[in-house]
Amino acid sequence: MISPKELIAMHEAINIAKNPDTPKGPNPRVGCVILDKSGNYLSRGFHLGSGSDHAEISAIKNAQQDLVGATMVVTLEPCNHSGKTGPCVEAILKSGINKVIIGQKDSTAIGSGGGAVLAKSGIEVIFSPLEPEVSAINPWFSVAMKQQRPYLRLKLATSLDGRIAARDGSSKWITSSAARRLVHQFRTDSSIILSSTKTVIIDDASLLARNSDNDLLKIQPQRVVLGRSEIPQSHRIFKEGVAPLIYPHHDLDSVLADLWSKQFNSVLVEAGPRLTTALLRSGLVNEVLWFQAPILLGDQGLAAVLDLGVETLEKAHKLHPYSVEQVGVDTLTTLQIPVVN
Amino acid sequence: MISPKELIAMHEAINIAKNPDTPKGPNPRVGCVILDKSGNYLSRGFHLGSGSDHAEISAIKNAQQDLVGATMVVTLEPCNHSGKTGPCVEAILKSGINKVIIGQKDSTAIGSGGGAVLAKSGIEVIFSPLEPEVSAINPWFSVAMKQQRPYLRLKLATSLDGRIAARDGSSKWITSSAARRLVHQFRTDSSIILSSTKTVIIDDASLLARNSDNDLLKIQPQRVVLGRSEIPQSHRIFKEGVAPLIYPHHDLDSVLADLWSKQFNSVLVEAGPRLTTALLRSGLVNEVLWFQAPILLGDQGLAAVLDLGVETLEKAHKLHPYSVEQVGVDTLTTLQIPVVN
Repeated sequence: MISPKELIAMHEAINIAKNPDTPKGPNPRVGCVILDKSGNYLSRGFHLGSGSDHAEISAIKNAQQDLVGATMVVTLEPCNHSGKTGPCVEAILKSGINKVIIGQKDSTAIGSGGGAVLAKSGIEVIFSPLEPEVSAINPWFSVAMKQQRPYLRLKLATSLDGRIAARDGSSKWITSSAARRLVHQFRTDSSIILSSTKTVIIDDASLLARNSDNDLLKIQPQRVVLGRSEIPQSHRIFKEGVAPLIYPHHDLDSVLADLWSKQFNSVLVEAGPRLTTALLRSGLVNEVLWFQAPILLGDQGLAAVLDLGVETLEKAHKLHPYSVEQVGVDTLTTLQIPVVN
Repeated sequence: MISPKELIAMHEAINIAKNPDTPKGPNPRVGCVILDKSGNYLSRGFHLGSGSDHAEISAIKNAQQDLVGATMVVTLEPCNHSGKTGPCVEAILKSGINKVIIGQKDSTAIGSGGGAVLAKSGIEVIFSPLEPEVSAINPWFSVAMKQQRPYLRLKLATSLDGRIAARDGSSKWITSSAARRLVHQFRTDSSIILSSTKTVIIDDASLLARNSDNDLLKIQPQRVVLGRSEIPQSHRIFKEGVAPLIYPHHDLDSVLADLWSKQFNSVLVEAGPRLTTALLRSGLVNEVLWFQAPILLGDQGLAAVLDLGVETLEKAHKLHPYSVEQVGVDTLTTLQIPVVN
């Protein structure tokens, strides 16, 4: 049974989660409110991104009063695992809270099961009826849980005629510095940057994320490289940051399953035409981020998208345009591919 | 010598020319004001597009008083030729007006020389100092006069990856009905629709312009087709409208020179990859109108742009992005290529 005061508190927790200062990824945004037995606010908490306290811990720490008999209202099911921080379930049990209202079930590989553990320990656990509103806080995270694999965004940067390099292979830089800065924001919001050995070798790409001051982020997305080509140890990907994960194959389903099991929820792909095309054919792409520079390279340039197996117009790959915006002199078209139930 | 009242009248004529009801093409938008000897307004006139009175004639007709000794203030040099309407110079001489203030010199092949004829007949002719403001009323017309050939707009309609047809040649329709309706507006604003015999044969395109009710326009742009391939007489281009002009060659400079000499000021190109690429290589394109549908066709599809002779990224064809907008589910990117002085 959920009271009107608790329902209002869930709306409040949703608003806290949506705080514009909270990073949009790679961790889901979570808001938490603690109420006393009479439904009065005791404290609030939210999650500020990887490495910082989860919203539940933050709310418990922020409380000035004793929490015995209190109610926690939280947008996402409390975790039952120790990641970079301790498990929330443990902290809740210790606090004396005896009722937990949850906005959205956590069905990630590692995060799930917190509600069941709490219930077994005698805590009243209720899922609120506001699931759609809560899912909308972190649309990519909700999609990832629905499909039980990471949300996959595919970035392309091409000329207006769809080429990623001129005839001689030159490609630095097709897009403007404004577009490249935005790519760093996309990297920052992702838990994985995925590329292929060929692209890493050819571009000597570090695939690291930088902040708006162009400094390397302290907590970097994990870099993942697919393929059998040997990357020289002198390449930048080995010189800077934590070593990349290398999968010596292109079995995309198994790579994504493995990353999901390792608690990675969102992947940004920055790869060459072969991996890009394989992903488009696989149906695993959730979102396409396509930067186009106002230049033409002609058909002697390298095509961004190779053979999709499209024989006739009716069989074209259809995407859902979501937004189009100018980024410096370039255009960014964002397209989404809905998950088939 | 131009008086303050006459200068104010020129600003008024500019505003009249910019009337949103006035078609943006294919004829230039022109505004006209007639003042009496004391600088009081006698009448106003504007040009409502092909086949209707020129602004000068309209202003003379609108005047209630005798015009002997009056001053005409007009944004564009009065014409000296009989097109679909009589020459303005003749009407001005008949009216008794004895001073004409001109905003912009007409240097089209046929329209030019009106000012000189008026001056020879004893009329005081003055060019106003507001030429930049006046040029901006009809930017495409001003560019055409500067380059002494028609303003050339190139339309493309492709998939996101720059393909105009799937592997089997199917291309109807890549873009949405909203985009295709907008193309009819672009046709309406042009004096020429240019294509190639190949495209006309393959698509059986009529290249006629329709209004927003999908009815054929009464006054159509002239259709021009380049190439040697024989178009069957049963094709739509011969069945409807005035016969197309056919040039059995691809000498683009001479075609544009000939069209300019025939008083055509603006060309919309809707052609296949070969003519499109030849035009891009020729440097004759002033503006690119690129529709992109949110679909992918892959590299087995037909490329919109063929070999541009670009060896390396530095030599890419650089365009100036002017605007990007969503048209239905499609994107329209407009790019301009400045005229080199």
